[in-house]
Amino acid sequence: MNFVELSNKYIPIIEKELTNQINFNLPDKRKILKEAMAYALLAKGKRVRPLLTIAATLLFGNEIKKIMPIACAVEMIHTYSLIHDDLPSMDNDDFRRGQPTCHKKFGEDIAILAGDTLNTLAFEAICTCLPKYYKADKIIKVISLLAAACGINGMAGGQIMDIKGDAGIKDAKYLKDMHALKTGALIKACIIIPAILEDANEDILFNLTNFSYHLGLLFQIVDDILDSTGNKAKLGKSPNKDKEQNKLTYTGLFGIKGAKEMAQKEADKARSYLVRIKPLDIKMLLAIIDFFEKRDF
Amino acid sequence: MNFVELSNKYIPIIEKELTNQINFNLPDKRKILKEAMAYALLAKGKRVRPLLTIAATLLFGNEIKKIMPIACAVEMIHTYSLIHDDLPSMDNDDFRRGQPTCHKKFGEDIAILAGDTLNTLAFEAICTCLPKYYKADKIIKVISLLAAACGINGMAGGQIMDIKGDAGIKDAKYLKDMHALKTGALIKACIIIPAILEDANEDILFNLTNFSYHLGLLFQIVDDILDSTGNKAKLGKSPNKDKEQNKLTYTGLFGIKGAKEMAQKEADKARSYLVRIKPLDIKMLLAIIDFFEKRDF
Repeated sequence: MNFVELSNKYIPIIEKELTNQINFNLPDKRKILKEAMAYALLAKGKRVRPLLTIAATLLFGNEIKKIMPIACAVEMIHTYSLIHDDLPSMDNDDFRRGQPTCHKKFGEDIAILAGDTLNTLAFEAICTCLPKYYKADKIIKVISLLAAACGINGMAGGQIMDIKGDAGIKDAKYLKDMHALKTGALIKACIIIPAILEDANEDILFNLTNFSYHLGLLFQIVDDILDSTGNKAKLGKSPNKDKEQNKLTYTGLFGIKGAKEMAQKEADKARSYLVRIKPLDIKMLLAIIDFFEKRDF
Repeated sequence: MNFVELSNKYIPIIEKELTNQINFNLPDKRKILKEAMAYALLAKGKRVRPLLTIAATLLFGNEIKKIMPIACAVEMIHTYSLIHDDLPSMDNDDFRRGQPTCHKKFGEDIAILAGDTLNTLAFEAICTCLPKYYKADKIIKVISLLAAACGINGMAGGQIMDIKGDAGIKDAKYLKDMHALKTGALIKACIIIPAILEDANEDILFNLTNFSYHLGLLFQIVDDILDSTGNKAKLGKSPNKDKEQNKLTYTGLFGIKGAKEMAQKEADKARSYLVRIKPLDIKMLLAIIDFFEKRDF
């Protein structure tokens, strides 16, 4: 199974669930807020994070229905972070997921609120839908892990390192830490949360944690490469933003060739941790590593 | 006991807890994010929401240590909402809690991130600290209720009604719904969450729900009045913003005299529901109603 087959199989299910989750019936100006949330959330994305939660669940042979609230929650949180990161005072992006960014379409005020609302909706969705399937004490662990992954020692911490760092830093450790937080923390949550819910043992958790660390770095290194080499139609967002904004990136620090070699290394490391958890069925996660390595969008 | 005595007794405890909750030890640019969070969170506020959670807990005679994670969480969420509402694309306020607004001090990008981070930190704090004291299934109920209070049918929904409404609407129902969501939803959560945690019966929950609805409206009507009549030094924020921004308000719709009469009515209604839950010890909540009615800051 490759990533395209995986996407074709699961993305329709993910998008149906996301649509259900924001299916509010609203009488007044709140309609506009719902519209903005739906515009950003239901635009065509790669759905990498929900696919990862599904792949991690299938390691344990479980039906994916049970993990869908988490799949939706991580996509809501990712989408909120995109909306806010794209704002003029942050990365100032006009184009995202093949369409004008949320603030370009609805204005900054509504975009900020749409992001805020998706953020808390993620936690609400988990609390509403997950107790049918899992015990309460595990769900609390999961919410805690997810909230931490969004916080100052996770996604938001990585984002501040990004906007307050610049190409002048030339510090590989800073760059790695930044990406491990900005992208890696949520990617790790996507993998570890299903493992916790499915009672994975310490050994499996250890290997999955290391796997997801390298997977997150792989994703971000390739993102840096695509910003230098990709095209807008394929990416669904504007390339060359990092250079324009003088950002600290893998390509800036190591060149495209160097970054490609590093991506290769991270992919190999990710695979090396993954094979250790056999005989669990790792083929879907292997397909995701392959895609992360070779993707052009 | 009046509100000043209440504040003198409990605010130091609340602020100590808040300080503990953001006591991160950070090695890099994340320091800036922590600084911005602390700047907004630890600035002198009335701490109405944590005081309400404490007052609601004391109804049931319980030690307040157990409720402090909730007290902190609601203050974090309130602070995040102030930071975002004050942004130039929203209410564009320069002054808050007696100091320049977060974006004035740190820039818009950091202010947005500080808000985002306080938002998820609230949920993390609950998951980290509450399981010591309460059962997991109750905590999930509480997180669900809090997340919903922040969402499109709560605070964020009220905010969109506010920024997309204007004085031209002249619709008392719209105004009431807007304030019930924008301010009322979180105030209600402050009262109802302790009641759920302390296993209040249906009858008490019913009366507390109605009490908190009227308390929320009372708070907001007086807020509208203070925007017309208050002064900056006392309020800690700039008055006359509503009129400048052509907002739909109680004073705009009913005049100051009319708004004062309505505030009086809401206070009376709040009291009428509160007395029904005697013999629970309601004196702290009564003191809060009194303060809400007569406050000049």
